[in-house]
This record gives sequence, structure tokens and C-alpha cells, in this order.
Amino acid sequence: MPVAWSSFYAERTAGMYSSEIRDILHLTEKPDIISLAGGLPAPELFPVEEFRRAFEWVLSHEGATALQYGPTEGYVPLKQVLAERMAKFGIQSSPDNILITSGSQQALDLLGKLFLNPGDAIVVENPSYLGALQAFNCYQARYVIVPMDENGMRTDVLDEILASQRVKFVYALPNFQNPSGRTMSLERRQHLVRIAEKYGVPIVEDDPYGELRYEGEHLPSLKSLDRSGNVIYLGTFSKILAPGFRLGWVVAPPEVFRWLVLAKQPADLHTCTASQRAFYHVAKDGFLDRHVARIRAVYHERRDTMLRAMERHFPPEVRWTKAEGGLFVWVMLPEGVDSRELLVEAVQEKVAFVPGSAFHADGSGHNTMRLNFSNSTPAQLEEAIERLGRVIRRFLGRVAVPSP
Amino acid sequence: MPVAWSSFYAERTAGMYSSEIRDILHLTEKPDIISLAGGLPAPELFPVEEFRRAFEWVLSHEGATALQYGPTEGYVPLKQVLAERMAKFGIQSSPDNILITSGSQQALDLLGKLFLNPGDAIVVENPSYLGALQAFNCYQARYVIVPMDENGMRTDVLDEILASQRVKFVYALPNFQNPSGRTMSLERRQHLVRIAEKYGVPIVEDDPYGELRYEGEHLPSLKSLDRSGNVIYLGTFSKILAPGFRLGWVVAPPEVFRWLVLAKQPADLHTCTASQRAFYHVAKDGFLDRHVARIRAVYHERRDTMLRAMERHFPPEVRWTKAEGGLFVWVMLPEGVDSRELLVEAVQEKVAFVPGSAFHADGSGHNTMRLNFSNSTPAQLEEAIERLGRVIRRFLGRVAVPSP
Repeated sequence: MPVAWSSFYAERTAGMYSSEIRDILHLTEKPDIISLAGGLPAPELFPVEEFRRAFEWVLSHEGATALQYGPTEGYVPLKQVLAERMAKFGIQSSPDNILITSGSQQALDLLGKLFLNPGDAIVVENPSYLGALQAFNCYQARYVIVPMDENGMRTDVLDEILASQRVKFVYALPNFQNPSGRTMSLERRQHLVRIAEKYGVPIVEDDPYGELRYEGEHLPSLKSLDRSGNVIYLGTFSKILAPGFRLGWVVAPPEVFRWLVLAKQPADLHTCTASQRAFYHVAKDGFLDRHVARIRAVYHERRDTMLRAMERHFPPEVRWTKAEGGLFVWVMLPEGVDSRELLVEAVQEKVAFVPGSAFHADGSGHNTMRLNFSNSTPAQLEEAIERLGRVIRRFLGRVAVPSP
Repeated sequence: MPVAWSSFYAERTAGMYSSEIRDILHLTEKPDIISLAGGLPAPELFPVEEFRRAFEWVLSHEGATALQYGPTEGYVPLKQVLAERMAKFGIQSSPDNILITSGSQQALDLLGKLFLNPGDAIVVENPSYLGALQAFNCYQARYVIVPMDENGMRTDVLDEILASQRVKFVYALPNFQNPSGRTMSLERRQHLVRIAEKYGVPIVEDDPYGELRYEGEHLPSLKSLDRSGNVIYLGTFSKILAPGFRLGWVVAPPEVFRWLVLAKQPADLHTCTASQRAFYHVAKDGFLDRHVARIRAVYHERRDTMLRAMERHFPPEVRWTKAEGGLFVWVMLPEGVDSRELLVEAVQEKVAFVPGSAFHADGSGHNTMRLNFSNSTPAQLEEAIERLGRVIRRFLGRVAVPSP
């Protein structure tokens, strides 16, 4: 008889489902839709020529090695470049405690594998990165949510939480958070590191956007503030070079590093050898600094264009974050509005976004939405925001919104 | 206070440990050791120039797309090439049910994630592929072992097992198994597929070496014999093109395919976009057939060299498999001998292998060892077997072996 597949799946599959983002991305692949839904970098900024030359060099000079199996830990010269670069931002590391991962998405999966029994609690910001929630769902995490305000995670609330319950780690995105665009203030960062110290709780710091700041001063990472070795730091090349190669890294205390290697080995043996060598050639000798400056200039303009257009086209009852960096602006519609219903009408007007509820571990946030500005030209952003403003005005005029 | 890390790890970490193979590989990195320990392809056969041209083409003509995020399911033209190629071997598939994975190692991890609750039973051959055991260990699998003989898995024993207990799947390597080098006979293949049908149990067929046959007739895969959609088939480019890129694939029933996509998305989003496009260019237009023929010729000679040298240098009480393909010869020392002790002496004589107990889910097999012939020249193989024969003779002369 044929296998009755549904009776064979593991219990964890109850938490595995297709993300709204992906379904929407499929929906918005039509060329006449302007999509603010994805989180894609601008492909016209990819350093294609540098990668072409780097692969040419690697495959001409060390081809056999680049095509062979490699160490799970990653390519040491690339890790050396990363250590030197992170040192500029106050993060002490060495190739011995940097693990190259297949994107920082893999790091999230490995951390779930290493730390989480079914039902184990972890602290997440509300909202938080959808890909992290999906990764931790596979390990049947239980989410303890901490609210945010304009200064990021409410660490006073976190302190109360940790006083009363045991959690496996605190997952934080301090810089220009996906999805909210918010940045954790220096005081909150210091407080968060003190709280981790107070309770002896690990922090997982996810920092894909830290270098993409368009105004204000760089704030130190949690990792650079941590004196007790309690912070596991995740970095990625996806937003500063290119995401297609799936190259990220983890900086972990030596003890955790060894376990992460043991978790990665049966997951994919190692990350692509040739890509790691090509990234080494692209990233060394200062190219990365020049390239990031260029990305910053372009995204800065796009963010400003979007924010100005929102001022002009959005009705006064709509609020949004003025993200100091990153890829996203976060919009709060009046309470009682469901942004998923709004999306249906928006797609008819050829503009798309991601409804915010997908990012909330507690299922709240129905009145929020995430707008991406990195993957559209200024002209497209103007047009998209004008369309979206029209849809929102029409929608709010029709929907009964309870008065506050 | 610093985190007390050891109290934070998940229960599954009890089954995660460094493989003997890896520790030995570290040991044998000294240049004067001839290592028969690894399972590495011969790097001098890698089609480096083809990959150089393929990356050059991809990065010159479709660079921005190749550097961007891609679909989790994989690059459709590459999957089309795979479907056409597998059709030659009787496997019906289409891009809609082929998932590109980050090596077939990732496929094993995803299958564990999809099917296994802690303590769930799966059937494995004894011995079996170490990387699979490590992947399934992470999901706290319980192993039900089936013995093998010269015709592969003892399907009569499997039939009895499945009559009395529920298992999540049967994991089988029918062709030139790693580590034993054994091949499942046609009758056993047919029987195995009938048994899966009889009990409605999934089969996971792992086939990294199927095309590397040096003598005898190609035998149909379990997937090609299966009429009920009970077989999940794993393929890989690691042994027929290059392992460093980590590119494999799964052919699964549509229902299982959808779940595997949901399992892969939070694991690494997708496999490297540029590599998939480069592999498409290398694999299309018949190159793969010509290249595999070349690999076969070289490995055939190496296998023959090793087997002839073993005839000359190994004492008569030692037996071994005459692998019809693949990368390994499997050696059975007299009962009571521990090949791990032998390894210590072998390394002193500058030759290395993998002790066979690592591959046995039940911890047996102390008197066995795995020898690799793909990654050494014929001259090195002659020398290595001569050294190993000397060590074995000396060792057996000194160790008290119980008479049979």
C-alpha cells in the first residue's frame, strides 16, 4: 500500500508552515506590481564584476582545493578578514571562534538545534524577524514576548520576565530591526547586557543591518559591550555584498563554538568552499568599506524618498517609524484595521507590502505593515507610496475604526 | 554572571559528538602519511576548467540574478537537467518534485527534521553511512539495525522487523554502500520495494555512488522499481562533479516535497544561486556523461590496484569485499581484533584508515575497517597496502585471537 504520509511526520511539523511573505512574493512577481514586500537588496548594487574576478582567480589558482570538501569551521583567511573587520566595531574575535554558516539563517537553525527542547522558552522582541521565528518553530520553541518602543526592546519588562522564569536565550536585533526599523538605544543595550549578566542568560544578537546606518552615530553592539562571554553574535554578507551565496557567520564563546560545529557538520558538512574563497578575495583590501559606503548612499536616498512620500500621501491617522538604517519602514494603521485586508486592495492597485501580524509571535499587530525601500528606485517608491496612500485613505474611509 | 552553558543545551546534544573520521582526518593531515581514511574524490579529476568557464558565463551574463536571493525549491533549469538524466536510469521526476539541497547531507538533516520525534525508530543497514547516523542522532532517532550479507540488506530480516514494529522509514544505500562497498542484488531490491508496499513504510534511498560502477551491470534504483510513491531518492554531485559546492537533490512524492521545502526554508533559505546556475552550465549538453566515464576509468584502476595489493600483502585470515563500484573496500579482520588499536600502529607506519565500529549503529564491528581508494594514486595505494599488510601481520601475530 502507498505510505499514509501524514501519519509519519514529526510533531514539530505543526509549527512549520509557509510564510505569508513567500506567498505574497509569489503573488507580486507580476511585472506591473511595485512590491515593497520583500527584503531584497538592490541587485544593481551587487559587486558582480568583483565576484567575477574573484571566482576567476580562485578557479584559476586554487581550483582543485576550492572544489574539494573543506573544514566545517570555515575558511581561515576569510575568518581572519572578518575578525579584523569586527575589531573595528569593538568585537573581539579570532578565526578560532568564528563559524562560517550558510547564511545567518543557518546560524538560527543551528542555535535552535543546540539549545531548544520542545516547549523551551526563548525571549523575542514583538515584532521580530520572521525567519528566526520559523527556525525556532522547528524546535518547538515557546515564545516569551517583550514589547518594544522607539528605543527598542523594553528591557525593564525583560528584567521582570527573567526574574520569574527560565529561558534558553534572548533573541535581539538591536540595529534597524526587521521588521520594525527600530534601533535599540545605548542605554537599553547596556541594560540588556547587564540583565544577561544578572541572570546568567545567553543573548543571541542578530545584526544583518548594523553597517547600513543613514543618520546618527554608530551604537556599539551587544557583543562589544559584553564582558562575560554571554553574547552569541550573528553576522551576514547578504546585505553588504550579496545574499545569493548564503554566507554568514557566528561569533560564539569557544565552548558554544565547538557545539555549533557539531551541529553544522550533520546539517551540510560545510559551507561552499569556492564561495568562501571568492568572498575572501572580494572582502579583503578595503573593498568592503568602499562598497558599503556606496550602498549606504543609495539606500539613504531611497529611505528619504519613501519617508517624504509618506508625509505627502498617507492620511494623518497613520504613523510610522523613521528608520535610521536598514531596509524597512514600519507602519502603524489605526487600531482595529487589518492590514491583510488592506493588502488585497493594495494588490489590485498594483502595490504590495507585508502585513505585520506575520512578525508577531503572539499573533498581534494586525494593524501594522512593513515597507521595504531597498529594492525599488526612488521613482518607483514615489509611485508605490502614492498608490498605497490612495488605498489606505479609501480603506479607512470605509472601515469602521473604533475611536481610541 | 557568565552563562553556565552546559545547563542550557538541548537533550538532543547527547547524541551529537565529533566523528572518529574527523578526528582521524586531523591526525592524518601530515604529508608523509598515506591516508585511506577519508572519502574524498580525486581532486585531479575535478572539472576545474569547466567550472571556471561556467562561473565566468553566469557572472558575465546573469550576475545580478545569480547574486540575489533565489527560490527555496532550486533553479528550475538545473532540475530539468536532473530530471532528464534520472529518466535515463528509469527514475520519473520533474522539477516540481526535485528539491535542490546543500549537499545530500542536508537532505538527511531535513528528513530527520520532517519525520523524527525523539525515540522514533528507523531502520538502518549495519553498517551504515556515518553522516546519516549523525544527522538522525540530532533528532534522537532509535536505530533498528538490519544485518547485511554479500547481497546487501537482509530483506528477510527486515520483513520480520516490520511485522512487529512501527518505524518511520527504512534508510538504504543500495549501490556500493559507504562503508561496506556492498551492492544490493536485484532480487533484494525488488523484495525491499515489495516490503515497503506491504507495510506502507517509506524508504529513503541514498545513492551517491550509483554511477560509479566498475564492473557488472547497472541495477535499477529502488525509486525506479517503486510503483506506490513510497521511495524518497537522494542524489548528489559530490562524487561525479565536485563536493565543495555542496549540491545535492531529493526526488520526493509531491506531498513530501512540499514539506521538505518548508523544512529547508528556515534551515538556509535556499542553496547558493550562482553555484546552481554554474552546475547547470557544466552538467548540460552531455559533459556529465563524458566526465563520469573518465572518473570511472581512473577509480576502476585504483580499485584493482588496491585489491591486487591486498591479495599480495594481507594475511590469509583477513577478508574483504570486492566492491563493484564506489570509493571503498571493506575489510574484516578476525573476530576479537579491535581495528582502533590497529589504527594506532598503522599511523606509526604512516598509513591510515577508518575503524569500522564508527559505522555501526549498535556499536559492533570492532574487527572491521574501511579503506578508500579514490583519493590516492596507484603507487600510493601499493605502498599503503604494503605498509598496512605489514602492520596487520605484526598485530595479528601478537594479539590473541580466539579460534572460531
